[in-house]
Amino acid sequence: MAWNTEETRRRLKEAAVVEFAAEGLAGARMDRIAERAGINKERLYKYFGDKERLFATVLADEMAKIAEAIPPAILTEVDLGEYAGRCYDYHVAHPHFARLLHWEALAYGEKPVPDEEARVAHYRRKVAGFEQAPRDGVLEPAHLVFLAMAMASWWDAVPQLARMVTGVSEVTPEEHAKRRATVVKAAHRLAGATSGT
Amino acid sequence: MAWNTEETRRRLKEAAVVEFAAEGLAGARMDRIAERAGINKERLYKYFGDKERLFATVLADEMAKIAEAIPPAILTEVDLGEYAGRCYDYHVAHPHFARLLHWEALAYGEKPVPDEEARVAHYRRKVAGFEQAPRDGVLEPAHLVFLAMAMASWWDAVPQLARMVTGVSEVTPEEHAKRRATVVKAAHRLAGATSGT
Repeated sequence: MAWNTEETRRRLKEAAVVEFAAEGLAGARMDRIAERAGINKERLYKYFGDKERLFATVLADEMAKIAEAIPPAILTEVDLGEYAGRCYDYHVAHPHFARLLHWEALAYGEKPVPDEEARVAHYRRKVAGFEQAPRDGVLEPAHLVFLAMAMASWWDAVPQLARMVTGVSEVTPEEHAKRRATVVKAAHRLAGATSGT
Repeated sequence: MAWNTEETRRRLKEAAVVEFAAEGLAGARMDRIAERAGINKERLYKYFGDKERLFATVLADEMAKIAEAIPPAILTEVDLGEYAGRCYDYHVAHPHFARLLHWEALAYGEKPVPDEEARVAHYRRKVAGFEQAPRDGVLEPAHLVFLAMAMASWWDAVPQLARMVTGVSEVTPEEHAKRRATVVKAAHRLAGATSGT
């Protein structure tokens, strides 16, 4: 039954996101993923191949989700500040996302990631969109987009550093709002769209 | 013999940095560290306690090294741009550093890190130093210091993203110089010390 297959795949992928976010590619275990999904391990291998292939599928899915939430073309519509703010929101709502990016860095680093071509195309569309947006041309578009991502992601990527540097240990909704406002102002300022703000 | 003990400790810690940077706290193995150092495992436990304690010692050592290279008081002497540039250089010269920070995030996250009080004091001195430095007051000092770190570290933290967003796959010395120049200008601009530059 087709719906059943779809439902099984969805459950397996959900379990895989949890396992990979917690343990990374090297530490994750296929039997734990199958067990968490309540589906037998043979099915997991049959649907997704080996662990590395499953990790690639999970990352591709997560990239598709963030691309839907924050489309590559968005930088033609909003300024770099608002873009960075939306990235910040996405990280707060999806705490596993920064962890998966980290694990990807630790697993691949300088080596090509799975489906690298599609990912590159996605980022290049973002940068190309931004080339049309208001900015003063001091810093190059690709670098600005990268730094906006850095400022939006770093809080969630190294929460222990955020806590120690700010001295704020409990991240309340008010603290999130404060951090988001900083990220928006900072990225806006970087683009130099309106100097002095 | 005292020198011998010191030499043994040094070799064990060097081997531990390599192992922890590659495998993280969960994945690292004490027997591999001892083997890499060419010293027996009993000695490793005797000198450093268990694996978690050894990880804490290694991180404390690495923090002491970066504090020596980029002293907390530096922000009273150089502007935020130059500070971020020096952080960028440090990451390039010590590629294991960002990895250890990541592993720390993955192992501790919201929980206190070992020796958190000393670490907090270190960062607070940095922020306090920066409170005296030229800036226009739009963004708060602790957030600016944190964002300067983010912009300096992110390249090395997620090299796969840097590659895909910039489209540059081989990071030559020229590319490093270009990225560093961006980081310096960007952090300088964030501080708003001289608007429009």
